[in-house]
Amino acid sequence: MTAFSEKDILFMREALKLANAAKGKTFPNPAVGAVIVSEGKIVGKGATQVYGGPHAEKIALKDAGSKANGATLYVTLEPCCHYGRTPPCTDAIVAAGIKKVVLSVKDPNPLVAGRGIRQLRSMGIIVNSGLLRKDALELNEDFFFSIVAKRAWVTLKLALTLDGMIADESGGSKWITGEKARLCVQEQRRIHAAIAVGKSTLNHDNPQLTIRHKSGYNPARIIFSSSKEIPRNTYFFQHRNETRSIVVISGGIPWTISRESGIEYWYTGEADEKVQLTTFLKMAFAQNIPSIFIEGGQIVASKFLENGLVNRLHLFYGQKILGGGKKSFAFKKGMPINNSIILNNTRHQILDGDILVSGTPEIVST
Amino acid sequence: MTAFSEKDILFMREALKLANAAKGKTFPNPAVGAVIVSEGKIVGKGATQVYGGPHAEKIALKDAGSKANGATLYVTLEPCCHYGRTPPCTDAIVAAGIKKVVLSVKDPNPLVAGRGIRQLRSMGIIVNSGLLRKDALELNEDFFFSIVAKRAWVTLKLALTLDGMIADESGGSKWITGEKARLCVQEQRRIHAAIAVGKSTLNHDNPQLTIRHKSGYNPARIIFSSSKEIPRNTYFFQHRNETRSIVVISGGIPWTISRESGIEYWYTGEADEKVQLTTFLKMAFAQNIPSIFIEGGQIVASKFLENGLVNRLHLFYGQKILGGGKKSFAFKKGMPINNSIILNNTRHQILDGDILVSGTPEIVST
Repeated sequence: MTAFSEKDILFMREALKLANAAKGKTFPNPAVGAVIVSEGKIVGKGATQVYGGPHAEKIALKDAGSKANGATLYVTLEPCCHYGRTPPCTDAIVAAGIKKVVLSVKDPNPLVAGRGIRQLRSMGIIVNSGLLRKDALELNEDFFFSIVAKRAWVTLKLALTLDGMIADESGGSKWITGEKARLCVQEQRRIHAAIAVGKSTLNHDNPQLTIRHKSGYNPARIIFSSSKEIPRNTYFFQHRNETRSIVVISGGIPWTISRESGIEYWYTGEADEKVQLTTFLKMAFAQNIPSIFIEGGQIVASKFLENGLVNRLHLFYGQKILGGGKKSFAFKKGMPINNSIILNNTRHQILDGDILVSGTPEIVST
Repeated sequence: MTAFSEKDILFMREALKLANAAKGKTFPNPAVGAVIVSEGKIVGKGATQVYGGPHAEKIALKDAGSKANGATLYVTLEPCCHYGRTPPCTDAIVAAGIKKVVLSVKDPNPLVAGRGIRQLRSMGIIVNSGLLRKDALELNEDFFFSIVAKRAWVTLKLALTLDGMIADESGGSKWITGEKARLCVQEQRRIHAAIAVGKSTLNHDNPQLTIRHKSGYNPARIIFSSSKEIPRNTYFFQHRNETRSIVVISGGIPWTISRESGIEYWYTGEADEKVQLTTFLKMAFAQNIPSIFIEGGQIVASKFLENGLVNRLHLFYGQKILGGGKKSFAFKKGMPINNSIILNNTRHQILDGDILVSGTPEIVST
């Protein structure tokens, strides 16, 4: 285990910050940040550009210019060593005269997976790996998961009352949580490749599924439906040309995609629910959508959770109690207390009195 | 506003600690702690004894003996100045030669209400009030409320899954939360004058309603029922002589109490629900039970909350999701999102991954 200095941590934090700002713009690539340090000072910065554009390392090297000679590169992911849409970063690092590379995490992409590190070392460059590894892993957890599982990562979010309702008896849900929690949802939208809701949420709430707090992010919009019918007066339909607009239809021939007047229709087949949902997630991965942020409603949320297809769950609790209304989850059959879904690795955040409980769900017998 | 030193705070914390340990043993009296300090050192300590026994100040004075002469008394509540079951504390303080009294909060009891302070001052004793006032108020919030409202304070507790269920579909609820949360419930039981559940909880869970983590506390046990029938094989029935065992019956002639083979039967009348519940709470206050810890089930919890009779709500969330089961609250009619119950003054505590959300519920239009 390499010992890292406080300065090392500081520089890597800067690289992570750059990566985080790029997150949401680089799909299906991971978001990477790079910082070049010469004589204790940052002389170059870079982050992954939109798909097909240069990687973080190359931007940083260009930014540093001749100062990269003899300098140290801090990068949040192992540099690539293969020809993809861009030439390998390892070549550029060597050519620029970088002496030392500090990186957070190895690339799980089977085309890289440690080869980048070995190549750099074979060229006489010092490589230290593992700095702020956990942060770097989490930043691209969708990427790391999807590239191995070959299906899209799913984050599920619901806003619920303290008694677990997502709407009152007449369907009202504005607002269960306060502004701070809602801003947190915007941030979640920003870092995902697509935002998805069920057809009944579309009909009831007519959501925009847009990012309103920052510009330059443009996730795809997905509606789960049993048919092709999408009301023309919805925001989704009227703004269908602003981004990829997808209607996922349970039925038809699986893996079929048809395009009509700006909307993609994805068919997931007639098979059982879990097969259908898995087909959809694999289609999404193949279609360069490695992560999906699902915002309900009850039916969609329940289906994905019940079938073990939610990678991360965010439950935002407001401070209200309704004593009735629409339940957050309604599984086909409620689970017994000793064989339920357990939220692992839970984290809690207080947002102006609202609470965000996050974790990784798992079906467990106790 | 008097300025207090760090030493003052330290001594009052000690007095609060003594009061807290006494809490649960002193009903219907408030739990008070007292510390006597001479030349910077604690020379006497005391806490309220069981009802009818001496007050905290007198115990501390006795503990200090002659060292009380010229010393400072730290006490968490204004000393009493009236003859109750014991002679006034103010007299004892003056007689012992105490020079200065530092206290947290004035006694809201109309028989005292500042008169204790005035009496001490008139005898030439320096009195500083308001140190750690908030903590002292909360410690006896039940007492301060009930003595003014003339009805018992209600704390309602439920343990729920993340989707708001208090049991699975077959009624299983063992265990929704972990050990740390359950210990926290034991602590809540300890500081209340009575523990109450509904008849169906009695039938289903056969709870002991005892304090198992500390000895010397003996809250009354209350069952809400529509009839006198109590199954003989329940812990409640079999251990009815260990403490006051009360069955509250909706019906009969209000304010009637009958006693049969160790059980008190309290009748709250045939009037509407809110009147019945209020009658019960007033009866409890009159019967020297100024605080009640209600632990469910759904019907009882919903009734008290819906009718605005819950003073403090504790919601313990485990880390499970059931996707069905028994809802935490089922009001007669679910409230609309803009006219719901809001939990004010919320506080959050993480207990080994479980979360405790506490607050004061209020029906609010937003």
